[in-house]
Amino acid sequence: MSSLKSYLIGKPLKSSQIHHEKFSVINGLPVLSSDAISSVAYACEEILWVLVPIMGIGSFKYLGMVSLAIIALLCILVFSYRQTIESYPNGGGSYIVSRENLGVIPSLVAGASLTVDYVLTVAVSTTAGVAAITSAIPGLLDFKIELAVCIIILMAIGNLRGIRDSARFFSVPTYLFLFTAILMIVVGLYKYFILGIEPAQTVVLSNQIGDLTILLFLKAFSAGCTALTGLEAVSDGVPNFKAPATKHAKQVLYLLFGIVVILFGGMSLLASVYHAAPSLDKTVISQIAEQVFGQNTFLFFLMQIATTLILTMAANTAFSDFPLLLSFIARDGYAPRQFAQRGSRLSFSNGIILLSIAASILVVIFRGENHYLLPLYAVGVFVSFTLSQSGMVMKWIRSKQAGWRHKAFINGFGALITLGTAIIISVNKFIHGAWVVFILVPVGVIIMKRINRHYKKVAEQLSLDNNYFPEFNKNEARRFIVPVASLNEAVIKTISYAKCLSKDITAFHISIDDEVTEKLKAKWEKYDMGIPLVIKKSEYRDVVEPLVNFINSDEFCTREDDIVTVVVPQFTSEKWWGNILHNQTAIFLKRSLLKNKNIATITVPFIIKDYKKR
Amino acid sequence: MSSLKSYLIGKPLKSSQIHHEKFSVINGLPVLSSDAISSVAYACEEILWVLVPIMGIGSFKYLGMVSLAIIALLCILVFSYRQTIESYPNGGGSYIVSRENLGVIPSLVAGASLTVDYVLTVAVSTTAGVAAITSAIPGLLDFKIELAVCIIILMAIGNLRGIRDSARFFSVPTYLFLFTAILMIVVGLYKYFILGIEPAQTVVLSNQIGDLTILLFLKAFSAGCTALTGLEAVSDGVPNFKAPATKHAKQVLYLLFGIVVILFGGMSLLASVYHAAPSLDKTVISQIAEQVFGQNTFLFFLMQIATTLILTMAANTAFSDFPLLLSFIARDGYAPRQFAQRGSRLSFSNGIILLSIAASILVVIFRGENHYLLPLYAVGVFVSFTLSQSGMVMKWIRSKQAGWRHKAFINGFGALITLGTAIIISVNKFIHGAWVVFILVPVGVIIMKRINRHYKKVAEQLSLDNNYFPEFNKNEARRFIVPVASLNEAVIKTISYAKCLSKDITAFHISIDDEVTEKLKAKWEKYDMGIPLVIKKSEYRDVVEPLVNFINSDEFCTREDDIVTVVVPQFTSEKWWGNILHNQTAIFLKRSLLKNKNIATITVPFIIKDYKKR
Repeated sequence: MSSLKSYLIGKPLKSSQIHHEKFSVINGLPVLSSDAISSVAYACEEILWVLVPIMGIGSFKYLGMVSLAIIALLCILVFSYRQTIESYPNGGGSYIVSRENLGVIPSLVAGASLTVDYVLTVAVSTTAGVAAITSAIPGLLDFKIELAVCIIILMAIGNLRGIRDSARFFSVPTYLFLFTAILMIVVGLYKYFILGIEPAQTVVLSNQIGDLTILLFLKAFSAGCTALTGLEAVSDGVPNFKAPATKHAKQVLYLLFGIVVILFGGMSLLASVYHAAPSLDKTVISQIAEQVFGQNTFLFFLMQIATTLILTMAANTAFSDFPLLLSFIARDGYAPRQFAQRGSRLSFSNGIILLSIAASILVVIFRGENHYLLPLYAVGVFVSFTLSQSGMVMKWIRSKQAGWRHKAFINGFGALITLGTAIIISVNKFIHGAWVVFILVPVGVIIMKRINRHYKKVAEQLSLDNNYFPEFNKNEARRFIVPVASLNEAVIKTISYAKCLSKDITAFHISIDDEVTEKLKAKWEKYDMGIPLVIKKSEYRDVVEPLVNFINSDEFCTREDDIVTVVVPQFTSEKWWGNILHNQTAIFLKRSLLKNKNIATITVPFIIKDYKKR
Repeated sequence: MSSLKSYLIGKPLKSSQIHHEKFSVINGLPVLSSDAISSVAYACEEILWVLVPIMGIGSFKYLGMVSLAIIALLCILVFSYRQTIESYPNGGGSYIVSRENLGVIPSLVAGASLTVDYVLTVAVSTTAGVAAITSAIPGLLDFKIELAVCIIILMAIGNLRGIRDSARFFSVPTYLFLFTAILMIVVGLYKYFILGIEPAQTVVLSNQIGDLTILLFLKAFSAGCTALTGLEAVSDGVPNFKAPATKHAKQVLYLLFGIVVILFGGMSLLASVYHAAPSLDKTVISQIAEQVFGQNTFLFFLMQIATTLILTMAANTAFSDFPLLLSFIARDGYAPRQFAQRGSRLSFSNGIILLSIAASILVVIFRGENHYLLPLYAVGVFVSFTLSQSGMVMKWIRSKQAGWRHKAFINGFGALITLGTAIIISVNKFIHGAWVVFILVPVGVIIMKRINRHYKKVAEQLSLDNNYFPEFNKNEARRFIVPVASLNEAVIKTISYAKCLSKDITAFHISIDDEVTEKLKAKWEKYDMGIPLVIKKSEYRDVVEPLVNFINSDEFCTREDDIVTVVVPQFTSEKWWGNILHNQTAIFLKRSLLKNKNIATITVPFIIKDYKKR
């Protein structure tokens, strides 16, 4: 097991080997923006899923309108986040900003929403990445789920090894996607507008033009909002930039804005003119790429590969950000402490494992179908946007520093708009899956509160009062009990050990099989060790209960606060599988005895050697 | 957890409550024959799967011929098993017979084959049962796998509760199936031969009549041999009959023979005249029932229900027989000992759980499709038939009792024929899945051998030599180490406990975070307990290795054979989920320390109370 582990995730690293790469703008962009940029791969398609069934071919006329609304929203968000970056040079995620400015409950809501989101980022991005593959190779359609889970497992292993947020690692896929996507937009528009090529009607669409009602517009808008996920990453990552960090982070934010506008706008335009219709088998992007670059051409496959890669990178950002968030929450005492510990490779291994399991479950439940997962996605994102903006507003109001009114207005406007969007998305997507988020987030908050209550209790009960000095030897702890099933080398070793520590040893046998008991009695007499053997019958073949009953009985008679010590031998086989073959009564016994305040247990090791047969 | 368990499987039972019902012929028949009788539900269909694709409508001419060959084989088996019943009034399964007469390896082969078979019995019978349901309600076709796994889980729970092989429980489904199936045969033949009704051609079959080659015949024959599975149950169950047990068991065997001949022969005839063709959606029996009783009539549904019930009973026999077999093997030291222990409800719970998991995995792998599972099935059955018959031959040869030649001839003939059949089946089904059995059985045998070797080694190392008397206090065990992360109530309790037992206590701190270490140092000085505090830095954030290194170092300096005792506090929360929230370093530490021959570990319990907030 241990060698498999070290093969998969590498040798342990020293604490001092922790390493922080500082980004320039060129390096930081791919690391922090892959999530946001990759959303372009499915956002257009989601809008069309809403429009096409109702408006048929008329959808393409309004696709642009919806896209423009989303770009406007993006614009507001960029202004808002610019201020967050300025105020939080050490990183201002929603959790931190709302904890500092809004209090515990809002920060827990942000934490729970972000948790849901990160899990969805992984699930959505990998399934979308798989969709890009299956669009190019339809033969793999039957293996969607398996492919997605494989990618998640690979990412988990990679992150357990501790893939650094290294610029090198992220640059290639991000810039490759940028390059191919822009190439596709340029070539596509040139072909259509300059060469006047009439796009092949690949999908038959009804010509009937339904009306674009407000309701339909809002639905399409909320579907497209998935394009804005991942935007927060830049404000989280400020401390990773080279000085002046704030300035560089803001430059990246602007660049990101520009890129999303170009890609999302361009894709919308291409989808409109090439009449790409959403389908479960072929992504919209792949339909466009097929028409622009030609079927089965090198560039077509390059586009699909680049899409898969950037989506995988997007999922990977969740693998580096979520465990970090969880470690913050754990350090504040609202998540199990194990999440705050770095594993052998200095990654927050428990968080990584949790994330990969949760995302895999989602992928399996939703049959690897990106389109079914997306309704769950944007709600949490916009809830955390809103909380983060509101936190900023509170910060400005409290600080009253120069220009606070202006700044509070910008963040307040951002908060209002994102709140509105969150509501629109929730209403429109509620029955399609968003309700799940409305259960998960409150449940998450309650769990975090309870965890915190537990830790507080523990701290209270463990704390040493300042005026308190330990009293020793107030209680006795000299009475030993050795449970004996049969008399053998291991028991002899155990008793021999116990005799070093105590003069008051009782051997205790639970009789299940009369024959065994008789044999033991005979042997016990033969090897007279000067220790009394107490025998009790167990009607239910249970070992623990009779022992505890005996300890508490008048027959044994201990003073209330005295600690009784139970000494058990524990077999350990030199072969790993050898341990499966023993009843593990010792482990079982200990686990149950530990529930008793005053029973300590000693385990005396007995190693079973794996010599060759003579 | 514990209350969920007792809700599902009931309160523990006393060892004295073990209970054996003795069967009369009428009661014993349903209990011991459901497996064999239920095979009729799929055997005909399997023959047709071989014939129809090649011979089209001509298949039905030859179906009878194949069926007759199988009935002849059954006849030979009945003669053979009659003798096993006579010789093994305490139950003569293949494992026991071959162990007694052929030696260890053949018995392990029989054990492994039977294990594979019992798992397949469960998988095959439940999927066939589900097929009977989905034939009646096609809407459930998509939930095949889920249904089958649910049935398996229900059976596992039922058997963990300890469903008795009670006649009452088995009689209803078995006799119901017998009654409905015979009714269908009578009505079906009457309608066709007397009323002269022309069967509706439900499935379009090619009229082209291929030749019945020997090869095709053998293929069809080996497919149909699944009808003979479950025959061994009667010879296993001899001791469960009322006296004279042997006589009653033989009567049941004859009755079983008669029933299989009538049902299998009758079904073959009906399939021939009603031209039922195999399909993945509708079983052959349901096609016949539809034509005989009419679509969606009461009797049609009754037939489907009865089929499902008897198949479930058949799976249930595996749930009672397999854990028993495994307990025999475990008692002989060839399987993990845990399988020889009765659980809280006196059932062999570990065997039941293993069986249900293995069968569920098979069902999932084979997509709940009975037809894909069956090729794996008959091989193991016929291998164990052959071993059991060969064992009987050896028994007669060795005994040389009156008429041994005659008896040896009968069993020898049986052995030859079953061996031949096993070879035919293996060859024909090899590429369709039987190869799996040829991997699993040898692997199983090797595992059982290795398990036995391990137990032998353990026994050798544990055994007390007759001339050996334990020497006490040869070694010291008075040096204690208390690992300390920070100074709190639990640590104080631990040290206070250790002070009762030893004068030589060292506190050991592993420094991961400098700040924490400084705090500890200050506190340690304040609460001066007269115990030295050793501090070591751990570069890899590991706790166990530095501790073991320290114990083995010159700094600590122990004599080679002295036992060092490590004392750790263990938190236990009154709430079950509370324990998840602690790092469980204690458990971790102990598990790793146990690998060291001379390090004993003491756990001192510290219970975290769950009081209400004040």
